[in-house]
Amino acid sequence: MLGKENVVLSIAYDGTNFRGWQAQKVPPVRSVESVLVKAIEKVANHSIDLMCAGRTDAGVHARHQVVNFITTSERTDYSWIRGINTNLPDDCGVTAVYRAPLDFHARYSAQGRFYQYVICNQPYRSVMDRFYTTHIDYPLDIEAMQLAANDLVGEHDFNAFRSSECQARTSIREIFSIKLHQKDSYIYIDVHGNAFLHHMVRNIVGVLLKVGSGKAPVSYAKMVLESLDRKQGGVTAPASGLFLDHIDYDWTLLKVRGE
Amino acid sequence: MLGKENVVLSIAYDGTNFRGWQAQKVPPVRSVESVLVKAIEKVANHSIDLMCAGRTDAGVHARHQVVNFITTSERTDYSWIRGINTNLPDDCGVTAVYRAPLDFHARYSAQGRFYQYVICNQPYRSVMDRFYTTHIDYPLDIEAMQLAANDLVGEHDFNAFRSSECQARTSIREIFSIKLHQKDSYIYIDVHGNAFLHHMVRNIVGVLLKVGSGKAPVSYAKMVLESLDRKQGGVTAPASGLFLDHIDYDWTLLKVRGE
Repeated sequence: MLGKENVVLSIAYDGTNFRGWQAQKVPPVRSVESVLVKAIEKVANHSIDLMCAGRTDAGVHARHQVVNFITTSERTDYSWIRGINTNLPDDCGVTAVYRAPLDFHARYSAQGRFYQYVICNQPYRSVMDRFYTTHIDYPLDIEAMQLAANDLVGEHDFNAFRSSECQARTSIREIFSIKLHQKDSYIYIDVHGNAFLHHMVRNIVGVLLKVGSGKAPVSYAKMVLESLDRKQGGVTAPASGLFLDHIDYDWTLLKVRGE
Repeated sequence: MLGKENVVLSIAYDGTNFRGWQAQKVPPVRSVESVLVKAIEKVANHSIDLMCAGRTDAGVHARHQVVNFITTSERTDYSWIRGINTNLPDDCGVTAVYRAPLDFHARYSAQGRFYQYVICNQPYRSVMDRFYTTHIDYPLDIEAMQLAANDLVGEHDFNAFRSSECQARTSIREIFSIKLHQKDSYIYIDVHGNAFLHHMVRNIVGVLLKVGSGKAPVSYAKMVLESLDRKQGGVTAPASGLFLDHIDYDWTLLKVRGE
């Protein structure tokens, strides 16, 4: 029997032209998973099961998504990266490769996920950033947004912040931190948590935008959270501003072979 | 007779899907000029002649291009901006409006042009920046590039750096400065000059890339310049990395009405 290896890849993608992470056969959609599986199988020369740290929605971007697969093929790190990238479209790319113990699982081994939401806050749209930010043309009170966000930190039932299509069994999640900062016309919302429900980050941003615009008081986020009622929330913020930034693991498990 | 006003606009565009600045009727192409003229004429309610500070090529971006036109229509600054932007596609936008004396001309009144060339210098492509940088996957010697660039500063005959389609009567131009700097994986080449020949910035970058890669010595830029021979130059660097950043004027001439 051939030796098995658990190969871990760091992946970046521009979500604009993907219908999200998940492959779907009927009807067929252009998903990140489908283009990746196809490219990896070409290099591995056998079919694979691809695990992923965080399934992203249509239009959501990723800077350092993490995936893994078990292979019986021996390839150098360089061969995996070059080979897979050659077979990927321009809007998706492998940026690093690691080797992990066979029981490492991109999703179940993850200790936390970092998302970043980027708002372009100026009267006129920024044409160059239009696919990578959410444009808000009225002034936002970032201090009020930070105060509202603080009420969501901790372990809570986030039922009010999940989409109606969310299939998770429990809506209890832990948010480790939400930090806002502004640079020039850009407002960055960094959200770090153990795991997230469907649309959870975008629904949090929707509530914070309502606070930032003055349409709701700072206490609004806490009120929505405690209601446990999806109908109390704000509008789901657009996908274009959302980035899955990176994933937290026990990185001592992951080795770069360094050929 | 109606009063005349000289309206000056600052324009940003993503050059990716434009066939450059210039309108062309046969065959019709999607140009920045054509979408702008159409949008401005809708708001002005009469036909206009549009002057522009620097005609950019297909694929080249602009952060603060400057244009002007004479109008007999009275509109507030806000009406011009909002009205024109409403009639523009997403990849082009007005960012500011000024009023100038009637003899102000976006091209002839310009005292200098600032271009920026952006290189993403890392082994693997950056998917999010793929339309707004030029990706170079081998290491570049930025100090050697800066030394080579220094030989191009000043007033020179840049015949070796113009394209074969360049229609300028003289190829004498003055470069005020070329400054390189690096931030993370990005190398920025800032080129400031009085005016530029067709493909001049991209041909300069092509020569600097040959020096930066070690394929040519630092003296290569000076050698190409002195040859006055287009065939001595390097490859024209891709349009995707080039931005017309902004234009230099005697800004005391330009007023914001500030309604």
